[in-house]
Amino acid sequence: MIEAQHTAPAMRTLYLSDTTLRDGEQAPDINFSTDDKVAIAKELSKLGIDEIDAGFPASSEHSFKSTQRIAREVGPLMEGRDHIGYPITVVALARATEGDIDRAYEAIKDAPRFAIRLFIATSDLHLEHKLQITREECLVRLARAARHARQYTPNVHFGPEDGSRTDLAFLCEVYQVAIDSGVSEVYIMDTVGSSIPTEIAKVIKYCKANVKYDASVRWGVHVHNDLGLATANTLACIEAGIDIVDGTMSGIGERAGNVSLEEIAMVLTMHQDHYGVKHRINTRSLTRVCRMVTEMGGTAMAPNKPIVGQNVFRHTSGIHQHGLLRNRSTYEYLDPEMVGATSDGLILSKLSGRSAFQARLERLKIDHLDLSPDRLNILFAKFKILAEDRTEVTDADLRGLLKA
Amino acid sequence: MIEAQHTAPAMRTLYLSDTTLRDGEQAPDINFSTDDKVAIAKELSKLGIDEIDAGFPASSEHSFKSTQRIAREVGPLMEGRDHIGYPITVVALARATEGDIDRAYEAIKDAPRFAIRLFIATSDLHLEHKLQITREECLVRLARAARHARQYTPNVHFGPEDGSRTDLAFLCEVYQVAIDSGVSEVYIMDTVGSSIPTEIAKVIKYCKANVKYDASVRWGVHVHNDLGLATANTLACIEAGIDIVDGTMSGIGERAGNVSLEEIAMVLTMHQDHYGVKHRINTRSLTRVCRMVTEMGGTAMAPNKPIVGQNVFRHTSGIHQHGLLRNRSTYEYLDPEMVGATSDGLILSKLSGRSAFQARLERLKIDHLDLSPDRLNILFAKFKILAEDRTEVTDADLRGLLKA
Repeated sequence: MIEAQHTAPAMRTLYLSDTTLRDGEQAPDINFSTDDKVAIAKELSKLGIDEIDAGFPASSEHSFKSTQRIAREVGPLMEGRDHIGYPITVVALARATEGDIDRAYEAIKDAPRFAIRLFIATSDLHLEHKLQITREECLVRLARAARHARQYTPNVHFGPEDGSRTDLAFLCEVYQVAIDSGVSEVYIMDTVGSSIPTEIAKVIKYCKANVKYDASVRWGVHVHNDLGLATANTLACIEAGIDIVDGTMSGIGERAGNVSLEEIAMVLTMHQDHYGVKHRINTRSLTRVCRMVTEMGGTAMAPNKPIVGQNVFRHTSGIHQHGLLRNRSTYEYLDPEMVGATSDGLILSKLSGRSAFQARLERLKIDHLDLSPDRLNILFAKFKILAEDRTEVTDADLRGLLKA
Repeated sequence: MIEAQHTAPAMRTLYLSDTTLRDGEQAPDINFSTDDKVAIAKELSKLGIDEIDAGFPASSEHSFKSTQRIAREVGPLMEGRDHIGYPITVVALARATEGDIDRAYEAIKDAPRFAIRLFIATSDLHLEHKLQITREECLVRLARAARHARQYTPNVHFGPEDGSRTDLAFLCEVYQVAIDSGVSEVYIMDTVGSSIPTEIAKVIKYCKANVKYDASVRWGVHVHNDLGLATANTLACIEAGIDIVDGTMSGIGERAGNVSLEEIAMVLTMHQDHYGVKHRINTRSLTRVCRMVTEMGGTAMAPNKPIVGQNVFRHTSGIHQHGLLRNRSTYEYLDPEMVGATSDGLILSKLSGRSAFQARLERLKIDHLDLSPDRLNILFAKFKILAEDRTEVTDADLRGLLKA
């Protein structure tokens, strides 16, 4: 017999659920065609996403068709998923009604792995003003819906809408009813993005301690970025023991958007020692996929979007350029290759110093270029005047400057 | 004698330092003219900012002139600052050299309140590869610079560049030397944006416990958003007892940008019970000032920028619109008026439901419009077809639909 090798304890795997095509498309300026959605879904599958929220079939014919095409065309794919070992789970959203659930099932039933994701609002504010039902009626509808969905699949998910503003004792009742009615994956929902990290972590811990569930139940989190805290809230939930994160590529979504999955992936990669979890995202595709999503959706990505924005590996300040020329990690924490970004990084502007200016002149590879200290002083002074009123000084500008 | 009224214990005030015009302008796509900078500085003063990092005078003639004009034209202003009681402090950045410090003093000396902000890199990576000096030489330069700056003003600030990647014991030595040499405000610097909340809070607590300082010394924080955690890291530092936050409007700055001061202000406003600090920002001006900064700088603000982006109070999904029509707070955590935003909020698209569609038709105020259930069903079906391939359905589209 071969002795078992001594190994470190297995690290917990965090699963990622992507809702770019459903909650992401709820951004006012984003619109995907069915073809766009299928193309993006293929990329998400290759990226290593575990579950894809493909649409809300009862909401429109477009959503039904897109979800169905994703189930059929992307559901079976294994390309790029050898390290995962099974295809992506295609998820369809449904309100807690039989009609919505039937429609969701119709759309996804052809995928090898699929799940029905139910939601119902649970905060008193939503129950009273939106649904106009009591807490008891809410529980009855949830239980009935979960049992109906279970007839189609053991993979039934549930998220209590406006959960972060729901009375905590009632929230536990809600999860208990969901789990007792056959739900296999429950979400903590910060629907309006009102949470802060310490508070949302407390909610997770309280619910996990006060709800009875077995090891087959996964706990997930779905947060919005209204206060700029989506990433931090998600990380606080990971520390509090959740198993799956639902978010979007480059953080598109309602209002200020959903949590950016690329930020979660990179924080976990860079701080694996602290969080103690691994993920299965191919980080080298992040820049490409995020840009594809915003371009197809027809929206602008902020130049300074963390991880994938066009500015994150570009530098103008003289001191930063000087440091980067000596050692790239002085001013870059992330390695551009790790997220699939390409950039030479140095931009000449009025903020640039002598070392970047000289490096760029040398890169022009002009024969017999005189860069003696005196000559460089004169050229640098001319450069500073030229740069005064423009954002960037290009190679063409430099050639002109050398001729002048 | 009048008895003192019984009052709750005074809440700690968090001070805000703005570096939009200095670190903000270091973004590759941002360029402010001197007039732009003066105009923005006036708005920052009225907004309630405590200190303004007006520029780095030794870096360029433009920066010197802009800093000088801000010192002279904005330094004395009191408009909108009655609740603060004194004018803004004009800050100029300087490396730890006599030349830089002299230049900084020349630029700011005409302001009623001014400060010189020194920096020197302290991580071994920066010392070895960029400055090519030893730790001892770093301390000598810092002490000499601080004493030189103190000749001009008691308001000398200091930030150790790449502080978050600096050996913790050495970092304490650095702060001790700075404070012993007369520095009145010291910053924790996450220059490359590599920190996570729990770790940066530990650094603050460790340094505050291991450095000797008196009550006149303020501790500040300056972080970048490379991992999407700038706001969360800043909040963790506030919980750990820092006094002042340095950031930018709408988070512009190097790479993924600096912390967004509007996010900090609104989190503290909405979660005052948790953080137990107050700030003095006129939040109703946030949207206007942030948009002015990105427009003047020539960059794009993300539509989903938290707090101030154009999408944060706009809604397309049918369920959200239905909820908002009944009670705005169902899907809006922040009150648009609180941040000076105006929007009717409801956008018609393929995701819209019947209630938003009907509300928008009614808003057209067309005489004798038939909105009986049967007629509405027909119109809604036509609307869904029309909406299929466009991002937004306008009032003009609706009028066409009623005529068809």
